[in-house]
Amino acid sequence: MRHFDMEMTELKKKLVDMASLVQQMITISIDVVVKRDKELSKEVFAIEREVNLDEIVVDDTCLKLIALNQPVGSDLRFITSAMRINSDLERMGDEAVNICETGLELLEYPELKPLIDIPKMVILVTEMVKESIESFNLSDIELAQKVLEKDDAVDEIKRTIFKDLMEYMICTSDRTTIVRAMDLMFTAKRLERLGDHATNICEDVIFMVNGKDIRHNNRPN
Amino acid sequence: MRHFDMEMTELKKKLVDMASLVQQMITISIDVVVKRDKELSKEVFAIEREVNLDEIVVDDTCLKLIALNQPVGSDLRFITSAMRINSDLERMGDEAVNICETGLELLEYPELKPLIDIPKMVILVTEMVKESIESFNLSDIELAQKVLEKDDAVDEIKRTIFKDLMEYMICTSDRTTIVRAMDLMFTAKRLERLGDHATNICEDVIFMVNGKDIRHNNRPN
Repeated sequence: MRHFDMEMTELKKKLVDMASLVQQMITISIDVVVKRDKELSKEVFAIEREVNLDEIVVDDTCLKLIALNQPVGSDLRFITSAMRINSDLERMGDEAVNICETGLELLEYPELKPLIDIPKMVILVTEMVKESIESFNLSDIELAQKVLEKDDAVDEIKRTIFKDLMEYMICTSDRTTIVRAMDLMFTAKRLERLGDHATNICEDVIFMVNGKDIRHNNRPN
Repeated sequence: MRHFDMEMTELKKKLVDMASLVQQMITISIDVVVKRDKELSKEVFAIEREVNLDEIVVDDTCLKLIALNQPVGSDLRFITSAMRINSDLERMGDEAVNICETGLELLEYPELKPLIDIPKMVILVTEMVKESIESFNLSDIELAQKVLEKDDAVDEIKRTIFKDLMEYMICTSDRTTIVRAMDLMFTAKRLERLGDHATNICEDVIFMVNGKDIRHNNRPN
């Protein structure tokens, strides 16, 4: 294996590892909300520091790979996609931190019994995140397409959650109910953004593999 | 001037033009909220299509510049920063569209009299956006630093807006007041994100000019 190819394999591995850290952050931060476990949040903040460092290292690696090897075609597409995916992963970590912080705020109040469809949304979004990384790791554009198709379902669930929570807010004069409903809305919004980042990654995978930019409804259907 | 330098100047001009479109989108979308003018929204959607196309063209230009010229050092940093700024600009356009859509929703209800500190936040954020582009155009890292320093003030105003709107929601049993207050909260949240994108651009400018990655509190103070 050429030295360059080894470095490219190394870069891919680094991103997959980073993605696994981000997935952990998402899982734990949702547990902070659902299981109401304050202790867990420390882990999220610790992993965030690691992910932030990874982001800088990956970008630096990509720049050096370009400068020293002057890649073209699919190699160059791989490296620039890696830079973009790197940025999406870091922002996914930020969303997880936000979810975690909202979870901590919710701990100050008694539990708002039903979490509405949030657990359903969590399942769908974490699946999208997992599969988007998998599609990158395996250069599997069919899987990437499958993830893109799930985006509408996420929007739909979010709309339902918003409608239900709005009813809660309207039917109460209790201050804490309003605060808690708001926090759950923001959580749903962040889950939606996690799904958006997963679709960004899938669009990058498709571009990386076949050189076709499918953003902004250039999607093949 | 070498052909490569001409193309680099062209790329910079393209991004500055794209940024000016995005600034227009932001200004108009805020007018939809503040002046309650439905007609204006059409313009936002029209400019969005242009910005989306620009994003694809800029990325393509950047890839070709790398592949055909094998730049290193500051040239390479300029091109990869351009790709990142490109992505931030497109996402800023998305936020403007979201603000515009919220504005359209608000038109369905009578005006919630005071817009709280939202106009103040608008002034600060549009200033950050304008200066971030200017710092890119002039490679002015001092200006970039100045923008970064404004981020805390934005967070502070957002917190005040949230607190004030929350009071509205708690003191009312009127459905539409809750809906309108929520919409204004989401607008404030989006303004905050516009400020975040402006800081991303400034971090890129600093990296582009002096090669120092200042993300994640690597900021010199």
